[in-house]
Amino acid sequence: MKKVVVIGGGTGNFVVLQGLKRYPLDLTAIVSMADDGGSTGVLRDELGVLPPGDVRQCLVALSHSSHLMRSLMNYRFENGGLGGHSFGNLLLSALEKVTGSFERAVEEAGKILYIRGKVIPVTMHQTRLRMVLNNQQILEGEREIYLSQEIDKGYQKIYLEPYPKVNQHVIDSIATADLLVVGPGGLYTSLIPNLLVEGVGDAICNAKARKVFVVNLMNRKGQTSYFKTHDYLKELIRFLGKDPFDHILINVQRPAKDLMDVYAKEGDLVENDLAEKRLISAELLGDLHLEPKQDLMKRSLIRHDSKKLAQELMKIVDRL
Amino acid sequence: MKKVVVIGGGTGNFVVLQGLKRYPLDLTAIVSMADDGGSTGVLRDELGVLPPGDVRQCLVALSHSSHLMRSLMNYRFENGGLGGHSFGNLLLSALEKVTGSFERAVEEAGKILYIRGKVIPVTMHQTRLRMVLNNQQILEGEREIYLSQEIDKGYQKIYLEPYPKVNQHVIDSIATADLLVVGPGGLYTSLIPNLLVEGVGDAICNAKARKVFVVNLMNRKGQTSYFKTHDYLKELIRFLGKDPFDHILINVQRPAKDLMDVYAKEGDLVENDLAEKRLISAELLGDLHLEPKQDLMKRSLIRHDSKKLAQELMKIVDRL
Repeated sequence: MKKVVVIGGGTGNFVVLQGLKRYPLDLTAIVSMADDGGSTGVLRDELGVLPPGDVRQCLVALSHSSHLMRSLMNYRFENGGLGGHSFGNLLLSALEKVTGSFERAVEEAGKILYIRGKVIPVTMHQTRLRMVLNNQQILEGEREIYLSQEIDKGYQKIYLEPYPKVNQHVIDSIATADLLVVGPGGLYTSLIPNLLVEGVGDAICNAKARKVFVVNLMNRKGQTSYFKTHDYLKELIRFLGKDPFDHILINVQRPAKDLMDVYAKEGDLVENDLAEKRLISAELLGDLHLEPKQDLMKRSLIRHDSKKLAQELMKIVDRL
Repeated sequence: MKKVVVIGGGTGNFVVLQGLKRYPLDLTAIVSMADDGGSTGVLRDELGVLPPGDVRQCLVALSHSSHLMRSLMNYRFENGGLGGHSFGNLLLSALEKVTGSFERAVEEAGKILYIRGKVIPVTMHQTRLRMVLNNQQILEGEREIYLSQEIDKGYQKIYLEPYPKVNQHVIDSIATADLLVVGPGGLYTSLIPNLLVEGVGDAICNAKARKVFVVNLMNRKGQTSYFKTHDYLKELIRFLGKDPFDHILINVQRPAKDLMDVYAKEGDLVENDLAEKRLISAELLGDLHLEPKQDLMKRSLIRHDSKKLAQELMKIVDRL
């Protein structure tokens, strides 16, 4: 069975994993630990736990349990002191408290959810993402970075504080992978935070695996405004040290005009400016389904279709 | 397989069920829905759910899952907006929200916990326990009744408001039981609240099952102070309509002196004043284990030994 390692966190990972889980693969999700917004942020602050949100999404993506169990994990309490917490986050945090270890917590939650594959936090240490903009403003935490509209004016640095030790299982997984999938996902809030952890960039560059970069569909306004394929690649290389990608997978399907209008406030479509042999162009857009209960989908109306994305990735796997 | 139905709620039920689950029995726990204290009370008020606390305890008692899962269910968050909530209560409340039904929630939680047997809420309707004392004071809710020290001065009435419809599964379970076990448990806060639901008393009296009343070990100060076996029985009969019990199981073991001293503030030992053929006397005291993490045990230092209690009950079952 081919081993596929997916690196990201958040909704991007979710789409890749949900697509790939239909195939007979040995799947591993490596998840950024920089999230500090919403329910996750409150749990970090109040309970001192590691951030559960992105891990929860990956667990749900890999889950083979009932639809009910997956709905339960994403269920958000609405009122009172519990308001805003997703049940899955509470499960992970309670398991961390009971077992004394976030890694055990993820493992046990994986059993409850019958996941096939593994979810591995990139680090087991508490760390915060920080970004210093060109205007000297310091953005504290992933949430602030996510909300900022000033990043496209340039930044001096982005780093994790304290500089965290990598989870050794991450290095081992990357080293033994047959296919590495980086992206899609928030460039500064999901992808780069993984690469800021000690040793992750080198591990990716040195891995024997075939390496694919899945480029985002949309730019995020004030962050990656008017980025083209090459801009994304350049930013990743900045943190990877070199360009390790054997394939770059881009979408060439245009969203419907009315959808683009709705989305205009959020950002623009990523245009391609590369003409390299390693470029794979495909129609990757998901049908528009507004599923108000699946909160992780709310964020991006224009999103990858998990089936189409998985089909393209499987073409690479099949040629390995 | 003999069918045993245990009626109560709270810690008393827990001890009976935990003991009986080691035997090849068809076990059903009928649980009072009057709890409104602590985490359960907050969830009722803030989320409008049915009270999960006693159901959680019964599910844990019947669970054949790992020690970790059982610890998880009883784990209480310590800080922030989650402070005081037990994880199991949150699981039941989230499941009630996701499935739209408390009964489904209990069923699904039972699957997650690999329970053998059934846990059945006595009613599916929101209701509050209310007690009017002789001094005209009205005690609102189980929690207030639990904390009152004025009940032994007499009360005019105790009732559920609104008067709830029984859960039909309760009537069916009682009708088809081979053995019915009433108690141990808080007289006014666990046992009688079940009998206040429409039809439950009649169902018990008319059941073909052998019926056992397990008398409490200790009186609760200000509530059942200086109650003897007959006082308990009289109170139950008041709500049952008649005396249906084939057996009355009492403890004759004396707790250690130092333990009695610790307990003196809480209440006194229940003395026996019955000399009937149906009386079964046995040594039923549990060893004193202080398990600070198992919060449901904190309440009663002097408690039934689940194994000894089950052995006595099994003697009755074996003679059926």
